[in-house]
Amino acid sequence: MVSERMKGLGNARSVIRELFEYGKRRAAVVGAENIFDFSLGNPSVPAPAKVNEEAIRILREQPDAIHCYTSAQGDAVVRQRFADSLNRRFGASYTPDQFYVSVGAAASLCCVFNGLTCPGDEYVVFAPYFPEYKVFIEGAGGKMVLIPPEIEGFQIDFDAFEKSLTPQTKGVVVNSPNNPSGVVYSRKTLETLADILRTKSEEFGHAIYLITDEPYREIVFAGFEVPWIPHIYRDTIVCYSFSKSLSLPGERIGYILVPGDITDSADVYAAVAGAGRSLGYVNAPSLFQQVTSLCCDITADIKVYERNCRLLVDSLREMGYTCVEPGGAFYLFPRSLEPDDMAFSERAKQFDLLLVPGGGFGAPGHFRIAYCVQTETIEKSLPRFRALAESYR
Amino acid sequence: MVSERMKGLGNARSVIRELFEYGKRRAAVVGAENIFDFSLGNPSVPAPAKVNEEAIRILREQPDAIHCYTSAQGDAVVRQRFADSLNRRFGASYTPDQFYVSVGAAASLCCVFNGLTCPGDEYVVFAPYFPEYKVFIEGAGGKMVLIPPEIEGFQIDFDAFEKSLTPQTKGVVVNSPNNPSGVVYSRKTLETLADILRTKSEEFGHAIYLITDEPYREIVFAGFEVPWIPHIYRDTIVCYSFSKSLSLPGERIGYILVPGDITDSADVYAAVAGAGRSLGYVNAPSLFQQVTSLCCDITADIKVYERNCRLLVDSLREMGYTCVEPGGAFYLFPRSLEPDDMAFSERAKQFDLLLVPGGGFGAPGHFRIAYCVQTETIEKSLPRFRALAESYR
Repeated sequence: MVSERMKGLGNARSVIRELFEYGKRRAAVVGAENIFDFSLGNPSVPAPAKVNEEAIRILREQPDAIHCYTSAQGDAVVRQRFADSLNRRFGASYTPDQFYVSVGAAASLCCVFNGLTCPGDEYVVFAPYFPEYKVFIEGAGGKMVLIPPEIEGFQIDFDAFEKSLTPQTKGVVVNSPNNPSGVVYSRKTLETLADILRTKSEEFGHAIYLITDEPYREIVFAGFEVPWIPHIYRDTIVCYSFSKSLSLPGERIGYILVPGDITDSADVYAAVAGAGRSLGYVNAPSLFQQVTSLCCDITADIKVYERNCRLLVDSLREMGYTCVEPGGAFYLFPRSLEPDDMAFSERAKQFDLLLVPGGGFGAPGHFRIAYCVQTETIEKSLPRFRALAESYR
Repeated sequence: MVSERMKGLGNARSVIRELFEYGKRRAAVVGAENIFDFSLGNPSVPAPAKVNEEAIRILREQPDAIHCYTSAQGDAVVRQRFADSLNRRFGASYTPDQFYVSVGAAASLCCVFNGLTCPGDEYVVFAPYFPEYKVFIEGAGGKMVLIPPEIEGFQIDFDAFEKSLTPQTKGVVVNSPNNPSGVVYSRKTLETLADILRTKSEEFGHAIYLITDEPYREIVFAGFEVPWIPHIYRDTIVCYSFSKSLSLPGERIGYILVPGDITDSADVYAAVAGAGRSLGYVNAPSLFQQVTSLCCDITADIKVYERNCRLLVDSLREMGYTCVEPGGAFYLFPRSLEPDDMAFSERAKQFDLLLVPGGGFGAPGHFRIAYCVQTETIEKSLPRFRALAESYR
């Protein structure tokens, strides 16, 4: 009586949620302070004070006007502020009509995939990857083509990538800093990627769009650079979210940038807007459109993530774990101590460590630690990680 | 290079938006006070003070917690409050797990259509109707079957309705109080509708769901009753929004109620949640989940709509216009003074009256007045309506 696909999606308990629910049950038995839940990517630092101050000020000063419909693409002043911010930071010259304010990163991606996809279209995704990409791409009628992980550095296996491109390739998705690896694509990686895309676009006689999922753009550690991808590859569509930079995941707010110089940019923008309409996104939440546009040049106090990262990486390596150095975000993606990452995650539960198996991210033999937690929690968890490692000796 | 359907949807300038933009240009010439814009359904009364007070209080008291992800179906406390409110008002016994908090009515409808639709499924819609239904139904892969309007009372032409039902009918959509007619379906209309649906469900051997789009449920005038439809027809799925009752259209917040006793209710709920996931709705905006759940028993000061309605209906009738008596919402849908409602709307512009032609709502020969404006604006517009009528003599 209902769509089998949708029923399946609704009933599928994600491994992450399962772990989270297990953690809550277990906490009731052993105490919350004795369970080390690294399952969820919920920012642990609060939103900047300015976010709440601006929200309160607007609610006070414009109690009547603030809750009205905005235009579907977002309030014009808000889009101007987003454009100004990027233009200042990256020396670009974007205009407000190139922005579509969205209900967060997932909505951004859905509007782009639904807007672009014609029958038979394919999107290339690099493992390890955020598994909802597959849901979004297939929901738009596209096919996801997954490139296996380059496990030495979680950059890109360019041989496999080049072979994956076909005349049906509509787009390539990158997510850097990456969930789940925390790795940042180097400028060299992005330049090689762009070279291949330009060659293949010419060979196939149509553009291949690079779709950048950038919720972690601002969370980058000392010594790492997150290049502005549209300057490296012209046919780039940027999907941004304020969920992580401003610690606002529940408010659902972000934007899509369709630069004016990409191939068929007017058609792409119209299609993104049409997809927003077809999917039921009337406008992004009006109060937080204003608030984020007034706060888009600041971030939450994200330094804690770098501190947590350093502590975890150094400690785990010393215990014998192998992990690629993250350059940002708040995830670490070490190798599991046995090839079966599900079994490893199960064993970790015996030590009250909740670690997400890597298979769901397209990288079996690894596990994800979401270290967006208090530093003290990490410190207290280290003896558990050591005991877990020792259990394998 | 992009989806033709989505590009078309993005480029389609709606007649309503065209009128609105024309009005802004014209206001620059003749002054805003001399242009009578009845094009948009944007609530004219502010949100209740309690909405802004609760929002400010929560931002002050829980600045860290309020912006976190909630569960995909909505915060559990919020869903409990929604259930309690309906149970109190309608003597029902809904439970929180029957609610899915959504990003407004459009999102509610999209999640339901996408969740329910199997290949070949049809949805019956009654003219006059909100034209985005067609976009949402076709976006979900369904087919919309439109029943012509019953223009004497804008109730239902049951002969046409009965003939429209086929084994492919998955659902029927009702919107009462109605946009664009303002008419409320009588208890008798709903009971006859329910009888037919029960007979046909039995004949076809499967349930036909009644999908109620209820953003105007609270805006009802003296002498009219808006019956609680699940008490009349069991297989009802309720799509609610706070956009109009709390004057919060920009904040995008509502809910879907999947009562536990409808056919395959667990599957329907799972499919709705799966559709929310597939369409990129991670959770409804977190602050306004809390705010609306604390304000769901109050409304904005909606009495002005009834006052506006009375003034317009009495005046227009006296001038010779024919209009069905509205029972709620903030729309009036009189007959145009010539059969071509587009030409009528064009002529009205000469009098600086912005009136939406009825053809787009599936009821040619009519026009819509969105009277969610200041009463003074209506008073000042009456000589224009009179002059327009006289121009046809």
